[in-house]
Amino acid sequence: MKYKLFLIAMSLTFTAAYAFHLNRLNSQPVPYPEGYRNWIHVKSGLTGSASPMFNKLGGFHHIYANPEAITGYKTGKFPEGSMIVFDKIEMIDDGKGNISEGKRKWLDVMIKRERSDSTGGWDFDEFLGDSKTEHPAAVVITGCYRCHAADKTRRIVFSQLRN
Amino acid sequence: MKYKLFLIAMSLTFTAAYAFHLNRLNSQPVPYPEGYRNWIHVKSGLTGSASPMFNKLGGFHHIYANPEAITGYKTGKFPEGSMIVFDKIEMIDDGKGNISEGKRKWLDVMIKRERSDSTGGWDFDEFLGDSKTEHPAAVVITGCYRCHAADKTRRIVFSQLRN
Repeated sequence: MKYKLFLIAMSLTFTAAYAFHLNRLNSQPVPYPEGYRNWIHVKSGLTGSASPMFNKLGGFHHIYANPEAITGYKTGKFPEGSMIVFDKIEMIDDGKGNISEGKRKWLDVMIKRERSDSTGGWDFDEFLGDSKTEHPAAVVITGCYRCHAADKTRRIVFSQLRN
Repeated sequence: MKYKLFLIAMSLTFTAAYAFHLNRLNSQPVPYPEGYRNWIHVKSGLTGSASPMFNKLGGFHHIYANPEAITGYKTGKFPEGSMIVFDKIEMIDDGKGNISEGKRKWLDVMIKRERSDSTGGWDFDEFLGDSKTEHPAAVVITGCYRCHAADKTRRIVFSQLRN
């Protein structure tokens, strides 16, 4: 029991310290990606009802990239100002195999900013629903960094441009 | 039995006559939609394993529109040269709710050509896989017309631009 509490405390401490570190890095807010629905569609996926995370993650995701990021996908080098959007859309299942799109759940954004080496030069944020101003708790954004930027064994941009 | 044969014969006659009619209309081939992956992504859907047509229709579909067709979605009037693409992509299901994209199955294309009133001013065709020249049998294309253009109670363009 004591060991469990210790682990929980350590985990909270780590998360808080990491969030503080990121807040300092991220003093320049990530802008809402105006016009991203006119950007190139990189690829899509779906999290279906078989997922243990369905309540949270269920639905389509569509990835869009601005022209700078398209250069990055093609050359492997993402220039300053590259923006990639992960557009999360509810799924509507008619039970007969027809799965269509519902409302927007959230919009994840990553932007390339050379100034920040410690997160691979990218900043991350999330916009809730169709809002251009509302964000989730900082701990959610910490999760973006932890997976995309803090694990140096992984590429920071996970997706590839589908043909 | 005789009645059944009569129905089959009538159905084949109708299909052949209709295909012939369309071939005459469609003397100008539908061009391959070069660069459509850079067009605006209109919306998506998925045909999942619960569909009785899964073997044929299973997978993602992404709809893309050229600039003329985007004007059409926004104004309700599709100008000459509007092109809409229905991009059919295999789905890969890991059994844990993660459904990702596989290979292209086919590409459906519709193009607005005012010259042809009898099919609502649109021509239709399908390209197999990633091919820019291979098409399915004419009867498949007849199906496009029958559903989109011949039934005057329906709109010819079914999709709407998602926000």
